[in-house]
Amino acid sequence: MCRSKNKGKGCVYIVGAGCGKADLITLRGLNCLKECEVVIYDDLIDVRLLDYVMPGTEKIYVGKRRGRHSVSQEEICKLLIEKALQGKNVVRLKGGDPFVFGRGGEEMLELKKRGIDCEEVPGITSAIAIPAEAGIPVTYRKISRSVHIITGHTAEDKAAEDFGVLAKLKGTLVFLMGLDKLEEITDALIAEGKDWNTPAAVISGGNAVNPVILRGTLKDISEKTKKKSVQSPVVIVIGKVAAMDLQNYHYMAAR
Amino acid sequence: MCRSKNKGKGCVYIVGAGCGKADLITLRGLNCLKECEVVIYDDLIDVRLLDYVMPGTEKIYVGKRRGRHSVSQEEICKLLIEKALQGKNVVRLKGGDPFVFGRGGEEMLELKKRGIDCEEVPGITSAIAIPAEAGIPVTYRKISRSVHIITGHTAEDKAAEDFGVLAKLKGTLVFLMGLDKLEEITDALIAEGKDWNTPAAVISGGNAVNPVILRGTLKDISEKTKKKSVQSPVVIVIGKVAAMDLQNYHYMAAR
Repeated sequence: MCRSKNKGKGCVYIVGAGCGKADLITLRGLNCLKECEVVIYDDLIDVRLLDYVMPGTEKIYVGKRRGRHSVSQEEICKLLIEKALQGKNVVRLKGGDPFVFGRGGEEMLELKKRGIDCEEVPGITSAIAIPAEAGIPVTYRKISRSVHIITGHTAEDKAAEDFGVLAKLKGTLVFLMGLDKLEEITDALIAEGKDWNTPAAVISGGNAVNPVILRGTLKDISEKTKKKSVQSPVVIVIGKVAAMDLQNYHYMAAR
Repeated sequence: MCRSKNKGKGCVYIVGAGCGKADLITLRGLNCLKECEVVIYDDLIDVRLLDYVMPGTEKIYVGKRRGRHSVSQEEICKLLIEKALQGKNVVRLKGGDPFVFGRGGEEMLELKKRGIDCEEVPGITSAIAIPAEAGIPVTYRKISRSVHIITGHTAEDKAAEDFGVLAKLKGTLVFLMGLDKLEEITDALIAEGKDWNTPAAVISGGNAVNPVILRGTLKDISEKTKKKSVQSPVVIVIGKVAAMDLQNYHYMAAR
């Protein structure tokens, strides 16, 4: 872990914990954790990661549960700045990758504005690894040669992209944080002309209480999901690859 | 590392080495490397990773350099099958993530077809981590709420997606393996109506001989790239976030 070049100021590592199990963190991320003096962490991380920190390391939970932010983004930034200005080396531990809907960019900007050393350490994103766990490769030669990662949960409650455009993409669509919007998403894609028979899957993450892998089509996946007690967060995959199940070698006529 | 449940057969771990430096591999991937008996590896990995294997582990290089495949995909699959059927535990080490244009899915399918235990271990993808290294977050609240990862180098030399559709996307476009097609890509996007003033960046990876970060617009990035001796592989980023430089706290009016 590099030390701050600014005398008297600590530095902040914005670390992606990866998704699911603790061993999906990177070596670099783990080294940061082992050497830090403060760790400020979210929900959606494997708490066993916290066992790696040194004795005496301050552990601060700032999880944001869906709907209610126990600690606001503003407060989190204030906390990061405060600890760094005390000369502490801080790890800001986030689920997945900090720059994929993780608000890591905003936190980094706030720190840099104040002259605080800050470095980002990428993490395994759920957009790719959660489908993989379910045997779905987000790209596959001659079947899907692009992958489109979209947030279901949006800043001003507007869709991130125009469904008319998304419906025309040939590659794999991956929606994160989209469970509440699933019906809206599938209906909109069908209304915009996407084949209702397009394979679709809903997969809950490695830390889910009741992990599920649901498969269906654009037409029925929302109904299937309603019937199970599926909990957020889930990854929604839409496209030919969503019919694949490499774990069990069902190829399910993905063409 | 789990052992094969099929008596007498080894198992294959298709491991993403991540991109750039060796410490971007996951703990899980590293543990697979430490315990395997054969490692079959590509270009675009940090060769220091090979220092982690046990003494006596067989190391087989099957790198595919652009243009000339030293070992064909078919031969690689044959080799994986052969080693596994000898009862060996094999690591297939790939740059980035095996399921993001890595042909990991194809290799897994071939192994599963033959009843060989096979597991995939995700890796940090260059599509997200290489821009991050250059201070570019692929998503940023209210600026880019989707990221579209597209291959520049395609199976039948046809584009993976319709440029008319790509040009209308509001989020970040990331092209991998697109250096040879850069001018074609930018020209097509402009022709389809994407603002020529859209920020664009060309970034070479962590293992590049002459690493570069070039910034410009959709209009001039291709020309700027031609002037430098840029070498493959590069990541091409197109969208408002491409103007950001979080490392140096230049925000460069990304709106």
